[in-house]
Amino acid sequence: MDSASPIETPEAPTQRRAGGRLGRKAVRSAPIASFPTLVRNIPVYEIVPGEAVELIHEESLKILEEVGCEFRDDEAIAMWKAAGADVRDTRVHIDRALLMDLVSKIPSEFTLNARNPEKTVKVGGRNSIFIPMYGAPYIRDLDGNRRYGTLEDLNNFHKLAYMAPALHSSSSIICEPMEIAVPKRHLHIIHSALTHSDKPFMGIVTSKDRAEDTMAMAGIVFGEDYVKDNTVVVSITNCNSPLVWDATMLDAMKVYARHNQPLILAPFALCGASTPASAVGAVAQVNAEALAGLAFTQLIRPGSPQIYGQFMVTVDMKTGAPMGGTPEAAQMMYLMGALARKYNLPWRTSGFHVGSKLNDAQAGYESNMLMHAAILAGANYIWHSAGWLEAGLTCGYSKFATDCEQLVGWYKYAGGLPFDDFKDAMAAIREVGPQGHFLGTQHTLDHFERAFFMPSIMDYNAFEQWSAEGAKDHDTRGREKARAMLADYVAPKMDEGISEGLRDFIARREEKLPDVVS
Amino acid sequence: MDSASPIETPEAPTQRRAGGRLGRKAVRSAPIASFPTLVRNIPVYEIVPGEAVELIHEESLKILEEVGCEFRDDEAIAMWKAAGADVRDTRVHIDRALLMDLVSKIPSEFTLNARNPEKTVKVGGRNSIFIPMYGAPYIRDLDGNRRYGTLEDLNNFHKLAYMAPALHSSSSIICEPMEIAVPKRHLHIIHSALTHSDKPFMGIVTSKDRAEDTMAMAGIVFGEDYVKDNTVVVSITNCNSPLVWDATMLDAMKVYARHNQPLILAPFALCGASTPASAVGAVAQVNAEALAGLAFTQLIRPGSPQIYGQFMVTVDMKTGAPMGGTPEAAQMMYLMGALARKYNLPWRTSGFHVGSKLNDAQAGYESNMLMHAAILAGANYIWHSAGWLEAGLTCGYSKFATDCEQLVGWYKYAGGLPFDDFKDAMAAIREVGPQGHFLGTQHTLDHFERAFFMPSIMDYNAFEQWSAEGAKDHDTRGREKARAMLADYVAPKMDEGISEGLRDFIARREEKLPDVVS
Repeated sequence: MDSASPIETPEAPTQRRAGGRLGRKAVRSAPIASFPTLVRNIPVYEIVPGEAVELIHEESLKILEEVGCEFRDDEAIAMWKAAGADVRDTRVHIDRALLMDLVSKIPSEFTLNARNPEKTVKVGGRNSIFIPMYGAPYIRDLDGNRRYGTLEDLNNFHKLAYMAPALHSSSSIICEPMEIAVPKRHLHIIHSALTHSDKPFMGIVTSKDRAEDTMAMAGIVFGEDYVKDNTVVVSITNCNSPLVWDATMLDAMKVYARHNQPLILAPFALCGASTPASAVGAVAQVNAEALAGLAFTQLIRPGSPQIYGQFMVTVDMKTGAPMGGTPEAAQMMYLMGALARKYNLPWRTSGFHVGSKLNDAQAGYESNMLMHAAILAGANYIWHSAGWLEAGLTCGYSKFATDCEQLVGWYKYAGGLPFDDFKDAMAAIREVGPQGHFLGTQHTLDHFERAFFMPSIMDYNAFEQWSAEGAKDHDTRGREKARAMLADYVAPKMDEGISEGLRDFIARREEKLPDVVS
Repeated sequence: MDSASPIETPEAPTQRRAGGRLGRKAVRSAPIASFPTLVRNIPVYEIVPGEAVELIHEESLKILEEVGCEFRDDEAIAMWKAAGADVRDTRVHIDRALLMDLVSKIPSEFTLNARNPEKTVKVGGRNSIFIPMYGAPYIRDLDGNRRYGTLEDLNNFHKLAYMAPALHSSSSIICEPMEIAVPKRHLHIIHSALTHSDKPFMGIVTSKDRAEDTMAMAGIVFGEDYVKDNTVVVSITNCNSPLVWDATMLDAMKVYARHNQPLILAPFALCGASTPASAVGAVAQVNAEALAGLAFTQLIRPGSPQIYGQFMVTVDMKTGAPMGGTPEAAQMMYLMGALARKYNLPWRTSGFHVGSKLNDAQAGYESNMLMHAAILAGANYIWHSAGWLEAGLTCGYSKFATDCEQLVGWYKYAGGLPFDDFKDAMAAIREVGPQGHFLGTQHTLDHFERAFFMPSIMDYNAFEQWSAEGAKDHDTRGREKARAMLADYVAPKMDEGISEGLRDFIARREEKLPDVVS
């Protein structure tokens, strides 16, 4: 019964319905609000008893001991040999003592620094953050059409991420700027994230050099010395399930872990295809894969912060296509959360990821299914929390705006139920008495906004009013909201020297990089 | 770690994608499947510690002792006086000893009988059931248009309820048959529910006579003697919040409780309007209202089964309109569940109720928000689990079909994680090894369908396939599904004598009833 609700922190202009020109003006002059780290004030949901979690853990250990895990990189193999693992060719059998010793070196919490110190957050324990999606080649635009993403779209999504109070990061490759040559693309992605927003961001992992470029650009913005000791960027490395960590991922791991920057060790599991057709079995496998990756990061740099990761979807039996918010995806999330707590690790899951092509009923349904589970499972790094459509192939403007707004509600949900005004509420009941009403009372006027989440893209008007306003569906209202937000965007400040430094760096690197992948 | 998953029970034809004419034919010849009572096999989520629940309980008791509750009916007042309550005019102050003594007489579980004994279910404890919506004057039809409901629509919704494997009841007034005169309408509503489906149903509460007619028709179907001792119909009585039980509701209570049939004692709370603007405060008030109603039912007939009820939505601050799936609605549900368990009562909440006018992203989002909470909060009578749109003013065909299908997933979710095939799954991992795949393995073929929920209205196809099939949104696919289900409907059997008995009863009653409300 904590008295303070985290929602009392600065309120976002996007939370209110900015009606007409006057409303728009008011928003324009207001500072862009952002919520601090979400400090969870509700219990976690444990879907199975502790002994079931132990059973899964035990089976994961056996997999790594008996089956082993592939590490397809000479340097990695040498490191495992030096650490005393049983290595046969590229197959590493890791005994439980070595594995758990390495995993235990990972801090349970870390600070993730933003270029604007006010946007710096904590990850781990009761601290959770929301991060937009990542990696879409397509976008669904402000007119509702699906097409390739461009740099302008990417800039827009970073603007929206900056303006969304409950998003704690700008991600980076929200969509791919497809018009930019692949070898040079990463420079513009990182530049977009770092300049259009001042929140934490995410790194590039597609090659060693690109990872190094990410760190160099972070160094320009944060200071070269600063990034040696301080966590400024989170990057994703996916296990190639089942049980393969490939060279590209291991390269990225080595760059970032050596820089003391956290990786998400996240098998991208298509349950039933890359795991057994069993929720519990899939979790045991994914856990083994994550633990193997986490342990390896501690061979690179002991004590470096890392994130226990998870991305598990079931696949459509007929097509093999990934599904979105199914019951099993939620159930598996609870299991992963329980395992993360057992290992005392910060953990990542995905919030609003869906299979739907449109921001329609399917998308709404799938989104809530997974975010609901992520929140109750106690996830710390809640990724794909804005924009995600079509199994990640598309980022939608309408979906992005919808997700940003709903995150404010989830922030409130996880902040728990405030009891501090309970006595006042009881006094209001006495004052109003039977058959009275509370809408006009002083208690209501004083407490309403804090008490109840009021989304603006959702429509609760009477049918007649809604019809008079054009009978718009949610998707249409979401696009309008995104458009309105973009019209209100004012860029965060950046020192001109830093801006120039970034531009110079990009120019110098572009000179050396080819226009096509060799 | 229960070994048996309740989902192993008869599988519904509607669960599978009936592709083309051949698929349709297969469905037609299959018996209409239905799941037995959902026996929860996952823990409940407790959002606050026990002492917080006690605090709310304590405040509820104080409200009933100090403020009291209105009972606007002479007979009810006389009964309260006889029971020793402190009565002033129509205001009844109920001390905690009397209140809790009466409430403790209510059974913690009861059997709800269906006219087809195979559809009989249990309510309370770990037993939960899903029930379609109730009370919509409007429908959104198979072409997506909103219009008044008709008897044909009502028949259709009862057909869909009958065909949905995870719906355990046919409700009754799913939509209002608006073309039938109000004084006679209830007869046709009950007739529709009892003939188009063989599942449990719900009673009419708008007057004493209509409640008696409901019982008379139940008597024709179940046998007059049978309905004296056995629970066959559940009815809803709403408190007029704050703190008023009016004459109409008290009349209905008296009829049904005297017949030993359960009421749902459910304040319809518009939080912030009919309760204080405080989630915890609203729960304390609603709890007081429910307890007062429950206690009264035990003055009518001690030991009669009853359902602790709850319908709590927040209101839009600007318009006073009810909202759908907001975070606070979910949080309040957890509190109500904890109180129900404290009192050892079967409890009702609402699953798929939404504010949205359309089966769009808002509807999907709101639906999942509340059903997710209902499932984790351990609700027993999960009402409004199919069809609900527009704060209950509209029942949609697309929404109904969507909800029916998703209930299969929730049934599975609440059935828990099966561990019985865990060893097999581990063996599959050993067999497949690193970089293999599981799709074609024997384990996958054997386990897939049971392991993972596969909804058919949701679309996970590749964008190209989805486009080739018409790029349909979820709403469109839902309407197509509803149409396909109705085409496959085959009525449940009913003894011709009973059919005639019902028709005769209606004819006789209609002769006596006026065509307009006097």
